[in-house]
Amino acid sequence: MEFLRKEFGERFIEDGVTARLYVRDASFMEFSESIAGVVFPVDEEEVVKLVRWAARNKVPLFPQGSATSLSGNASATAKGVVVSFEKMDKVEVDPVDGVAVVGPGVRLEELNVELARYGLFFPVDPGSVKSATVGGAIANGAGGMRGAKYGTMKDWVLGLRVVTGRGDLLRVGCRTYKCRNGYDLVRLFVGSEGTLGLVTEAILKLAPVPESAVAVLAYYDDLETLVEDVVRVRAGRLWPLFAEFLDAPTSAVVGLESRNALFLGVDVNGGAEERALRRLESLVRGEVAQRALDWGNAMKLLEPRRRLFYGQISTAQRDGGVLVIEDVAVPISKLPEAVRGLKKLAERHGLPLLLGGHIGDGNLHPATWYRRGEGPGRVEKFLRDMAELVVKLNGTVSAEHGIGVLKKDLIKMELGEEALNYMRELKRVFDPYNILNPGKIL
Amino acid sequence: MEFLRKEFGERFIEDGVTARLYVRDASFMEFSESIAGVVFPVDEEEVVKLVRWAARNKVPLFPQGSATSLSGNASATAKGVVVSFEKMDKVEVDPVDGVAVVGPGVRLEELNVELARYGLFFPVDPGSVKSATVGGAIANGAGGMRGAKYGTMKDWVLGLRVVTGRGDLLRVGCRTYKCRNGYDLVRLFVGSEGTLGLVTEAILKLAPVPESAVAVLAYYDDLETLVEDVVRVRAGRLWPLFAEFLDAPTSAVVGLESRNALFLGVDVNGGAEERALRRLESLVRGEVAQRALDWGNAMKLLEPRRRLFYGQISTAQRDGGVLVIEDVAVPISKLPEAVRGLKKLAERHGLPLLLGGHIGDGNLHPATWYRRGEGPGRVEKFLRDMAELVVKLNGTVSAEHGIGVLKKDLIKMELGEEALNYMRELKRVFDPYNILNPGKIL
Ligand SMILES: Cc1cc2nc3c(=O)[nH]c(=O)nc-3n(C[C@H](O)[C@H](O)[C@H](O)COP(=O)(O)OP(=O)(O)OC[C@H]3O[C@@H](n4cnc5c(N)ncnc54)[C@H](O)[C@@H]3O)c2cc1C
Ligand SMILES: Cc1cc2nc3c(=O)[nH]c(=O)nc-3n(C[C@H](O)[C@H](O)[C@H](O)COP(=O)(O)OP(=O)(O)OC[C@H]3O[C@@H](n4cnc5c(N)ncnc54)[C@H](O)[C@@H]3O)c2cc1C
Repeated sequence: MEFLRKEFGERFIEDGVTARLYVRDASFMEFSESIAGVVFPVDEEEVVKLVRWAARNKVPLFPQGSATSLSGNASATAKGVVVSFEKMDKVEVDPVDGVAVVGPGVRLEELNVELARYGLFFPVDPGSVKSATVGGAIANGAGGMRGAKYGTMKDWVLGLRVVTGRGDLLRVGCRTYKCRNGYDLVRLFVGSEGTLGLVTEAILKLAPVPESAVAVLAYYDDLETLVEDVVRVRAGRLWPLFAEFLDAPTSAVVGLESRNALFLGVDVNGGAEERALRRLESLVRGEVAQRALDWGNAMKLLEPRRRLFYGQISTAQRDGGVLVIEDVAVPISKLPEAVRGLKKLAERHGLPLLLGGHIGDGNLHPATWYRRGEGPGRVEKFLRDMAELVVKLNGTVSAEHGIGVLKKDLIKMELGEEALNYMRELKRVFDPYNILNPGKIL
Repeated sequence: MEFLRKEFGERFIEDGVTARLYVRDASFMEFSESIAGVVFPVDEEEVVKLVRWAARNKVPLFPQGSATSLSGNASATAKGVVVSFEKMDKVEVDPVDGVAVVGPGVRLEELNVELARYGLFFPVDPGSVKSATVGGAIANGAGGMRGAKYGTMKDWVLGLRVVTGRGDLLRVGCRTYKCRNGYDLVRLFVGSEGTLGLVTEAILKLAPVPESAVAVLAYYDDLETLVEDVVRVRAGRLWPLFAEFLDAPTSAVVGLESRNALFLGVDVNGGAEERALRRLESLVRGEVAQRALDWGNAMKLLEPRRRLFYGQISTAQRDGGVLVIEDVAVPISKLPEAVRGLKKLAERHGLPLLLGGHIGDGNLHPATWYRRGEGPGRVEKFLRDMAELVVKLNGTVSAEHGIGVLKKDLIKMELGEEALNYMRELKRVFDPYNILNPGKIL
């Protein structure tokens, strides 16, 4: 650790009360190991030196943005050093090229504040957008509220500067929107949860803020109709900007009526609002309780959905529980069956269940909790059964939160050993000493 | 070859006149080696058997869709076996899930004919859309005319079944729109030009056909204004569906006035056409020569642009030349400088130049030609200088056509050896015997 003291001075905090704030991410999992400390690099050169030192000395490095991960992705699981990127937060916007060149520590919301000046925005919008950093969102391949139309991080990263586990600084991808310079290393790093390289800079693609939007909040008594309506809207040639869902108990938790709720928004041209809203209402068979006719109000209509996490966590706490937020996806046609199956499973395991999600992508975030005294055993069994269910329905055990520590067994159920073996070999190529976020994913 | 005769019977054509039709792709490069033959698998099991046989016997395999590649990507460069996927052409559309499950041999245009029945489409639209296959488009990471808004293949492939060079059949990615099951192997195969694995099935994401569109064809005397107008439109919160450009000589070749031409289209909501067209015209400072107020007419307005290839090839032929179509991209702000630089280079090398491209992405397709007797030497020097120019301007030596054989030296200029070394190691993981399209990219 002498090296860190010398190189980083006050930007290295050794183990103690402050350092311990960096040990855990937002998942429920606790890791008992102590860490050596936390280091705060300010530039790429420092990251290279740090990794080379760690490689020589076989010290595990745990990269971190804001540690809002929900599967243990950003937790320090061994006696290593947490690398916080919060000080690498430069933002350079080029509105002509339609790109931003940013440091990994920039928060997504800060970036969007900056971009608003140019009529541009960065569309990826996780529930954690106020804290989530670019580096963390890249390494997690984050999605969020606008995924139905705008996809996820993989669709919005053009180029990266990355330090691999061998201490090599690679420049991969392009500054241009299209790029075919060999294998797509950019997207290999996107979603790799810090296990293949440390991102020191990203070139992000930007989108123009849509001229306008319309939206409805509709209530449904049965879920089949709700899901069908999302499909009807798309077949009606309106491409949902967001399609978010809360089941009845969850709607109540965020202050709505206790019924299945659908938040459905479509971005439209200025002047097209009234006609588009009429078309939307003609396709939606639920009971429309709120309407929005411009971008600002469409975003406002979504606000109860944005309260989901706080609703879940306070409900769990009132019950003396530790919250567990899950993340699975199934093909849209399988959503009603998945929701029925999940409710049955929760019942069978005697667990509470709050259900919501990005229904436009088939992405559900079931939430449950366990009593602090009891431990997570029962929940873990529930998660296993849930994974079995979604895999059977042709779905995935992680739509956007990633694998981290929590889902290492579950991903095996989905992919089998063979694909994982190839992933293990990729890991060895980029991180032969296994120092970058060891113990995650694989 | 006994194995191929026995296993594939009439679906193995040994070297001869017919087999030789499969040796070359659409690039100008000629390869003199003879091949052993062409094989036409009909299912995944046959592909697995074929690869295992090739791996045991160290026989190079050259995968092929329609062989419309322009950098030698699909050419047989050694005495191996061409694997044509044309018989694996199943199409299954699931309009509820918003996906199509297709064989690699399906042509993009056939797919879109099928999808039109559901109000859906597959947005990736290369100039070769009538012949290009899904497998070829995936392995080439193809782009095209709608890239400005819809991106490229990497954005539209959800899942793959792939046979690696070890003969392992991998199922990677998901059937759902969002997917975070470990490292993104899907996008590692996208753009890998058949060097890492053979695609036997793809799950594609589909988009609803936009309700409507508006478009203009505008002429410009200076290029700066043309490029600025593309940026003004985006800053005006209209997101171009297409933004295509032809320089004056090229416009003449496709039957337009001999001036810089910009084709600019925006998808809009039904009913919003007139207002959107007014906005578009208020942002565009060129001389608007044609207007379109619905989807069909917007596509029709693009037709002269779709004639580009035929215009280029017939111009070259009239001149007794062999056509060479290039593919570079620069950040949009650098386009005028790139165009000026390219013209100067062509002049210096004494070569003809026809310039057009997907300007919304900064993607230029400069075309030139050499006399058959003369050989490509002078053109190859020009391509080298062109690569140097675009790399200096922060661009890329390939926006969408890929590396193939033609650009193996040029990619080094762009990325340096270090990134390429990592790519070489990835190649070894997936194809340790170097039997899959050997000699391409790296
Ligand atoms: C309330 C709440 C709502 C959420 N909603 C969503 C949602 O809608 N969609 C969604 O996708 N996710 C969601 N998440 C999960 C999480 O917030 C996102 O994935 C977010 O992008 C993570 O950002 P972060 O800065 O907190 O990253 P961290 O949690 O700090 O790190 C994420 C991963 O990236 C690695 N990492 C961090 N920085 C770097 C770097 N510079 N180089 C290499 N690796 C690095 C870490 O090791 C870790 O593996 C939610 C979480 C919470 C708590
Ligand atoms: C007139 C013209 C216009 C063009 N316009 C564009 C354009 O606008 N945008 C663009 O991006 N490209 C364009 N191209 C290039 C090319 O047409 C596209 O990349 C197209 O998608 C290739 O499809 P294909 O079926 O012909 O593939 P092929 O040329 O046969 O193969 C392409 C690559 O994929 C590999 N391959 C084929 N099938 C498989 C499989 N099943 N598994 C693994 N590897 C496989 C091949 O080995 C090769 O490396 C154009 C070409 C021409 C001739």
